[in-house]
Amino acid sequence: MTRDAYVVGSGIIEFGELYEKSFDDMLEEAYLNLLDGVDGGVAPSDIDAAWYGTIDIAGEGSSGAALAHATGLFETPITRVENACATGSDAFRNASLAVQSGAADVALVIGAEKMLDDTAGLIGSAALERLWRGRGVTMPAYFGMRATRHMDQYGTTREQIAEVSVKNHANGVKYPYAHQQFECSVEDVRESPTVSYPLNLYDCCPVTDGACAVLLASEDRAREFTDDPIRHAGWGLSADSFQRGDDLALTNFPATRQASSQAYERAGIGAGDVDVAEVHDCFSITELITYEDLGLCADGEGGRFVEEGHPHLDGDTPVNPSGGLLSKGHPIGATGVAQLAEIFEQLRGEAGDVQVDAPEVGLQHNIGIGRNATGAVSCVNVLARD
Amino acid sequence: MTRDAYVVGSGIIEFGELYEKSFDDMLEEAYLNLLDGVDGGVAPSDIDAAWYGTIDIAGEGSSGAALAHATGLFETPITRVENACATGSDAFRNASLAVQSGAADVALVIGAEKMLDDTAGLIGSAALERLWRGRGVTMPAYFGMRATRHMDQYGTTREQIAEVSVKNHANGVKYPYAHQQFECSVEDVRESPTVSYPLNLYDCCPVTDGACAVLLASEDRAREFTDDPIRHAGWGLSADSFQRGDDLALTNFPATRQASSQAYERAGIGAGDVDVAEVHDCFSITELITYEDLGLCADGEGGRFVEEGHPHLDGDTPVNPSGGLLSKGHPIGATGVAQLAEIFEQLRGEAGDVQVDAPEVGLQHNIGIGRNATGAVSCVNVLARD
Repeated sequence: MTRDAYVVGSGIIEFGELYEKSFDDMLEEAYLNLLDGVDGGVAPSDIDAAWYGTIDIAGEGSSGAALAHATGLFETPITRVENACATGSDAFRNASLAVQSGAADVALVIGAEKMLDDTAGLIGSAALERLWRGRGVTMPAYFGMRATRHMDQYGTTREQIAEVSVKNHANGVKYPYAHQQFECSVEDVRESPTVSYPLNLYDCCPVTDGACAVLLASEDRAREFTDDPIRHAGWGLSADSFQRGDDLALTNFPATRQASSQAYERAGIGAGDVDVAEVHDCFSITELITYEDLGLCADGEGGRFVEEGHPHLDGDTPVNPSGGLLSKGHPIGATGVAQLAEIFEQLRGEAGDVQVDAPEVGLQHNIGIGRNATGAVSCVNVLARD
Repeated sequence: MTRDAYVVGSGIIEFGELYEKSFDDMLEEAYLNLLDGVDGGVAPSDIDAAWYGTIDIAGEGSSGAALAHATGLFETPITRVENACATGSDAFRNASLAVQSGAADVALVIGAEKMLDDTAGLIGSAALERLWRGRGVTMPAYFGMRATRHMDQYGTTREQIAEVSVKNHANGVKYPYAHQQFECSVEDVRESPTVSYPLNLYDCCPVTDGACAVLLASEDRAREFTDDPIRHAGWGLSADSFQRGDDLALTNFPATRQASSQAYERAGIGAGDVDVAEVHDCFSITELITYEDLGLCADGEGGRFVEEGHPHLDGDTPVNPSGGLLSKGHPIGATGVAQLAEIFEQLRGEAGDVQVDAPEVGLQHNIGIGRNATGAVSCVNVLARD
């Protein structure tokens, strides 16, 4: 009934504090980098439709017209998608469904966020406002509570949590587009300023501007653009409620579990088949929990998993070779798209200094908490070499 | 390659000033009305995925997690779509593509907006901010300029423009979910307070809260839900720039022209095949211009078209039998979904006092201007009896 969609190119801009660039500048640069980056070339007229992910922190572009303006893709169907921190990955999913449906042969996905122009104060103020209004539960506080609960319930240590930051910063210094490029030790993480116990500054991703684009094509068109297309093998998308107070919901993310099990089923794989992953490390503890939620290790074993080096660049299941959100940054609409671009490069063997050993299957994961939400949303995509 | 998607049910709430209802209340009520309204019944577990349209004026639900919370559809993939005033119709389009792709057999579309809780002042302040900052070009001013230009270029009269409001209010008093239910004459429209010359109060849609849901199913599943499914026959989506200063862009909407020609091509029809239409009459002049852009009459003939009664309930091409945005109201995320629900009912012969004569093909249209956009976006969907 359906047909497969393939990633055939990507374009990213250097993430950072991009005060000198407008929102349109960032969209345009990612788009032009994509056009330049497709092996066999791509013209704007090849693009049948586009999906555009942003949570529009800066109030610069809430509809498809904004992307049309920045790229000149007038008369091209453009949908804007928002889904909290899973915005970019869900934009990708919708584009892929359009290619699978036959409605588009070639689809553009682009995500962007200007986090540092948060004139409305959305990042700091709104997290979990609805559920815990007035109780001071900002994002770091919320993830800090998950950390203390995980430590209490499973004996996870502060050092194990810090190991995630150490690993990702070690990777990020080798990744050319990362925002915060420095190496740090467990001691450095522990000595960085406290943000919300037990999380310190180096346990938190920076506030970063960025944009990234990828191009999808149908299986019959993909080889026009590259000899090495990468198949979108599966996806999952799920939400969860923080008002379900079971143990798993306090120490883990049921939304990630549901989304990843959907994605594994669609891709016809299990967690053990994942050769490389880009996951949502908005905080160090988030990645540690995500090892468990994705089934890369058993429940409660996330601390030991990172301590033993499994998710390291030379480990058996490298996680966040790009440096993750902790080093690269987290421009929300761009984040998922940039993770997919990295998995695309990894599977093609083009990931430069952070290339892992001959991966065949790659996973991309986001977990997000919407403004005023009472729950989390997770999106997982699986890419695979044919 | 692909398969068709069918509308199999709808649920709407009474539009109005719904201060007594929360945003979640409105979503829940539309969802429950949908569940009740499907002929053969539908259970939440039948729903494979959902698309949720809102521009989130009230800051209540910017991600899929918000709809999950209101409906209990946790673990169901939910994408939030925003595309200015085409938000609801583009959410529908994305849901349909998922059904066409095989990724979902049954998909929920729901749109909602709480316009009267616009705490951020988005409606009034942001329109066209980017292009004409500080020059006072609010929405009524922008559409007023289109009206004066149309009058100047084509000899359209003030009375002809008012006829649109007269027609739509005559329809709206017969449509049970409309917000502003009163009849008015051309004289009443002309004597209502000036908003932005030549547009008076009765030339403008009211500020309205509302929500609406429709259910889509694949062709092989549709008859589980109803004996009378309605096919999604075609769609178009396009953007345009206000910085292209050609004549057509000043008197008409190139985005509507492009979107409707895409939709006609996909549906294999021409404008002459449209038996009934729900179009975007945010202002009376918008509907008049849209007659021309959709090809229901020639360029410059919109005034005469309405004066001669063609788009009236008993005319040869009834437009806005529901009373349109002018009478029903314009809760942005809900607007397109409610138009589709009305076309669905019309094609099934279930439109009650506003039923037109045995339509086979129905068209739904939105034109929107995004916050801070420099152009318009238009979405057109065609529904058809098989």
